[in-house]
Amino acid sequence: MVNAQKNLPLNIMPLPAKVERGDGSLKIDASFHLAFVGYREPRLERAGQRFLHQVRKQTGIVLLPASTNTGAATLEIKTDHESKAIQEIGEDESYWLDVTSSGAKLHAANPLGVFRGLQTLLQLIAISPDGFGVPAVHIEDRPRFPWRGLMIDSGRHFIPLDVIKRNLDGMEAVKMNVFHWHLSDNQGFRTESRKFPKLHEQGSDGLFYTQEEIRDVVEYARDRGIRVVPEFDMPGHSTAWFVGHPELASGSGPYQVERQWGVFDPAMDPTDEKTYKFLNEFIGEMARLFPDQFFHIGGDEVNGKEWDANPKIQAFKKSHKIKDNAGLQAYFSGRVQDLVTKHKKTPVGWDEVLVPGVPKTIVIQSWRGVDALAAAAKSGYRGILSNGYYLDLGWSAARHYAMDPLGGPAAALTPEQKQLILGGESCIWSEYVNAENIDSRIWPRNAAIAERLWSPEGTSDVASMYQRMETESARLEWLGLTHLSYQRVMLQRVAGSWSPAEFDALRALAQALEHEKDYAREASASAPPTSLTPLNRLVDAVYPESDVSRRFSLTTDLFVGSSCQDRVREAEIRTQLTEWMTVDERLQALAQRSLLVKEAAPASAALSQAAKIAMNALDAIQKGAALSADQKKLQLDVLSALEQQAHKSQLTLPELPPFQRLVEAAATGGVCAK
Amino acid sequence: MVNAQKNLPLNIMPLPAKVERGDGSLKIDASFHLAFVGYREPRLERAGQRFLHQVRKQTGIVLLPASTNTGAATLEIKTDHESKAIQEIGEDESYWLDVTSSGAKLHAANPLGVFRGLQTLLQLIAISPDGFGVPAVHIEDRPRFPWRGLMIDSGRHFIPLDVIKRNLDGMEAVKMNVFHWHLSDNQGFRTESRKFPKLHEQGSDGLFYTQEEIRDVVEYARDRGIRVVPEFDMPGHSTAWFVGHPELASGSGPYQVERQWGVFDPAMDPTDEKTYKFLNEFIGEMARLFPDQFFHIGGDEVNGKEWDANPKIQAFKKSHKIKDNAGLQAYFSGRVQDLVTKHKKTPVGWDEVLVPGVPKTIVIQSWRGVDALAAAAKSGYRGILSNGYYLDLGWSAARHYAMDPLGGPAAALTPEQKQLILGGESCIWSEYVNAENIDSRIWPRNAAIAERLWSPEGTSDVASMYQRMETESARLEWLGLTHLSYQRVMLQRVAGSWSPAEFDALRALAQALEHEKDYAREASASAPPTSLTPLNRLVDAVYPESDVSRRFSLTTDLFVGSSCQDRVREAEIRTQLTEWMTVDERLQALAQRSLLVKEAAPASAALSQAAKIAMNALDAIQKGAALSADQKKLQLDVLSALEQQAHKSQLTLPELPPFQRLVEAAATGGVCAK
Repeated sequence: MVNAQKNLPLNIMPLPAKVERGDGSLKIDASFHLAFVGYREPRLERAGQRFLHQVRKQTGIVLLPASTNTGAATLEIKTDHESKAIQEIGEDESYWLDVTSSGAKLHAANPLGVFRGLQTLLQLIAISPDGFGVPAVHIEDRPRFPWRGLMIDSGRHFIPLDVIKRNLDGMEAVKMNVFHWHLSDNQGFRTESRKFPKLHEQGSDGLFYTQEEIRDVVEYARDRGIRVVPEFDMPGHSTAWFVGHPELASGSGPYQVERQWGVFDPAMDPTDEKTYKFLNEFIGEMARLFPDQFFHIGGDEVNGKEWDANPKIQAFKKSHKIKDNAGLQAYFSGRVQDLVTKHKKTPVGWDEVLVPGVPKTIVIQSWRGVDALAAAAKSGYRGILSNGYYLDLGWSAARHYAMDPLGGPAAALTPEQKQLILGGESCIWSEYVNAENIDSRIWPRNAAIAERLWSPEGTSDVASMYQRMETESARLEWLGLTHLSYQRVMLQRVAGSWSPAEFDALRALAQALEHEKDYAREASASAPPTSLTPLNRLVDAVYPESDVSRRFSLTTDLFVGSSCQDRVREAEIRTQLTEWMTVDERLQALAQRSLLVKEAAPASAALSQAAKIAMNALDAIQKGAALSADQKKLQLDVLSALEQQAHKSQLTLPELPPFQRLVEAAATGGVCAK
Repeated sequence: MVNAQKNLPLNIMPLPAKVERGDGSLKIDASFHLAFVGYREPRLERAGQRFLHQVRKQTGIVLLPASTNTGAATLEIKTDHESKAIQEIGEDESYWLDVTSSGAKLHAANPLGVFRGLQTLLQLIAISPDGFGVPAVHIEDRPRFPWRGLMIDSGRHFIPLDVIKRNLDGMEAVKMNVFHWHLSDNQGFRTESRKFPKLHEQGSDGLFYTQEEIRDVVEYARDRGIRVVPEFDMPGHSTAWFVGHPELASGSGPYQVERQWGVFDPAMDPTDEKTYKFLNEFIGEMARLFPDQFFHIGGDEVNGKEWDANPKIQAFKKSHKIKDNAGLQAYFSGRVQDLVTKHKKTPVGWDEVLVPGVPKTIVIQSWRGVDALAAAAKSGYRGILSNGYYLDLGWSAARHYAMDPLGGPAAALTPEQKQLILGGESCIWSEYVNAENIDSRIWPRNAAIAERLWSPEGTSDVASMYQRMETESARLEWLGLTHLSYQRVMLQRVAGSWSPAEFDALRALAQALEHEKDYAREASASAPPTSLTPLNRLVDAVYPESDVSRRFSLTTDLFVGSSCQDRVREAEIRTQLTEWMTVDERLQALAQRSLLVKEAAPASAALSQAAKIAMNALDAIQKGAALSADQKKLQLDVLSALEQQAHKSQLTLPELPPFQRLVEAAATGGVCAK
């Protein structure tokens, strides 16, 4: 039994740099307790308490207060020295974990490494034939990149404090270390400013974070070894500033909080000295509120229309010999960077801030691509990759996982240039994301990105990644994340009142579908969605990546790969297709009662009809009746049309490729169509 | 369409006293806003904010701050006057709700009626073919009983504050108005005492409520029209007091926090004046902390062993001519009641406090039965029923629903005597209940008890009750209750790492089973469980009442009732049996990996084997091959044995009766076995 256990894969995510399995395992029971040796501080004690709390949750074991335990600690945590008072990029996060049947030892240079190691240990606790335990193991681990971030957009939809905190818990679990907080945009200014209270009072619909709350988040993050980098996007993406402070804008105002999504005209006036006077005071206030060394000034997507329409600005351009709006933005950007530097912070900005002559201190966050990032590094700029890590686009975990900050042209950089690529950040932009479904848009896919940024270069087994991600996904709900549990509640709302059979059909539909990818949702909606559009529809409730579909696709691959001989897979495919074929019929009555179900009818019909085509193909394979070329083409055309039909509900049919494979297999003259 | 909607049942629970349906419906959209007229107070404003918050949750509709809305309010709330500063029993809770397509009006004498009416309105908001709306309706409603309570036992397992609060939200939703808080028992003293801090410091393992937290709960409850009645159980059930204050006990000590469950020897010394001096100060402190008029002194289950063993107490009995321990308890009880009265509170006690000569002011809470309650009323005592409402016993909602405080012998009371029966209280004793699964042990069944206590006498349609309870159950998760979502997380822990197919099998098993009823769990456990026993097993994760089983039973009834001719039902039965038949096999590998799955193997095997017997019976019916009397007896015997086998995992097989019905149907010479 010991050996059988030893062969089970370890569910650690991100994968550590080095793992050696041992024999036996450490039992976890009510006598479990831990002790700190070496350097100590209250933050370590709190981490210990959090660890024990999590052990209780994961195992259900009752752990009494430490005072009741005597004898040697089950877990000894040794810390060499303190970490920086304000966490810095590049601090040592390495740790060393040794588990034997008699105890566990965790050793790290400083508290950051302890935090990372404790998360690894938590992931190793599992039920076994003998109860809860940790397999014997020796781990030496350290991150590949020093900047491993998640950006949350609190501007477009306000994200409540408790949601922010549980996502920090999730970040800690997967060893991310930067929370990039996008705090202002056209649709909302979300930070209390005591110097300029009209910013949040008039620019937020009352939905903002107080400075006390922000300090609380910073402290909460610091406890987890996470830096908080604030972003105040300027000179564009700034309409919400202008509601209370129209004098900052390049237009004449008055301004309202923007309700639409997109790129808008309002932009700060880069030619007026009072803009910089205001920003100096504002940045000063925020620089004191956010202790991190880095300060994000945005800088993306200025369309220049307000500048073009303002004669004073045009005159300024002429008198200062600025030839275009890019030059004007460069001028603004340079002035703001000076202010950030003056307040002793290092500026970060999106790609657009990288223009000739910009100081080398700035860090470039690339949303445009790895090419831009590599080019920046070649020019001596530090950078972080976000292109390829936009979680709101609905990509698969595998697709995010394939993106590497040092991939593509960056692979050809010199070692010194590679050092300038600090890591990456996943981003969740919140047009279609609110407190209810944000967790599901971040997790579990964010764990794949976290692994890309932590684990050694070349970590690339996608099957292993998905297996570990599934386990980690379940664990994350113990931390309070709701990326799995949100769905039933949202589907209940969609359904209204239902029979169990109807609800099963609705869930089967929801779990077979994904929301539209990239920026298609804006394009396909009948009326452009706004910040007032309820996010209460099936498209808001489905998972971005369908597990059910992914598994069906794998099963189909195995079946077709077996020359259609694998009867077990065939039966699985048939069972699944049978369920999908009946979904539309089972939802007919409910669609008559609920507008929200009715809206999903095109997708529902598409799934059921497409499943019937796949079933016909399977029947043809079984009967050995190969489809003709014409039949094949017709079936594939219908499948494509049905996939398009699902878009009417802003949904996609991720089963299209496996359905196509079945039709193609049915058309072969070979073994598949006997 | 309007008429079709009109015929749908309204999902109101508890059912109102009077409901008249109208034509059309009131649309709920982003323009929804409400206005208060008449009497106003901050508590009403907060109720309005809570209502809007809940509308947002139920519909997903974005409701901007009220200031942005102009025009007539969608909902006008008229309140005639204030309610009592400290909520009293018997205050007017009636309301009047009128919804038309042009608006809603809620009218109540005082804020309590407003709270009740808002909950009714929330239950009426539903998705329709036109979007979210409320059907036109006229409701006049008032409660049948003035005391409609839920008791939570925080003594045996500490129940965290947030869990208490979300259960108060649930109580508000079903119009319960008394939170009875069982705050001390042998296993824990859960209230901070500033006069006697050793009580909570030494008697709680550090798990207690601070006075600030208690005041917060009292305020939270008052906001919802709920009274908070504290209980400090004495003279028995009090070991935890004695850890810090052994001088109160009748034995010599020292005492430890009790870890076992049951009735124990330690009891307060009723013969020592310092006991009463202590209790006078303690009750005084608690009487100030808890503003409610009523104060519960427990008084149950004193075994008298410490009294018998103490010569001083025996001498006291002799010198005071007290003939037995019941007399001694009566003496103690009388003294404590005097103290409670002195501190201007009305005492409440369990049945045992009712002895000849006890003052008529005391309220009797009956755990022994409706007979005792009726007898008390005949003697002029006020009473509340809890017998039949013990949620921890795992009864079906229907069984609780059938219990009526005015049923049985109480039906024969005079109208004046009936007035003395104030209502009832459901109770959740927490031997096998903790923060993780308590919601599932209370909800949704507590809604059936709430309906029994609110709705008019004779409200008794069980099918309607279950239908509405299911809808309400889904709604309750919007309030933050976790009685549905807890299960997946607990099953994940049981399973450890799993394939989706394995997890489906485990869920199918869990949802087919129920935990043992009444007090069987103690008896059948191999080692007596204690407060240190982890509640992490399948028995802790299953629902107390299996929906799946209840539906299967109904389907079987319909099938057998159709003389086994109903082919649709037959197919449903066959599908369900097929799933159950394979559960055990599908769990074999997982049981090898997880001790917690392995422990459930007897139940798993029992379900699958019993389902096979039922399937054989169904096959026999289909083939027209009647079972012989011997075959029938054998099959029924095996089914009973299998049901017993499930008890090895502390589980029951609620499918036993429908399986038996199938075997019996297969044995008839009539139509069923053709």
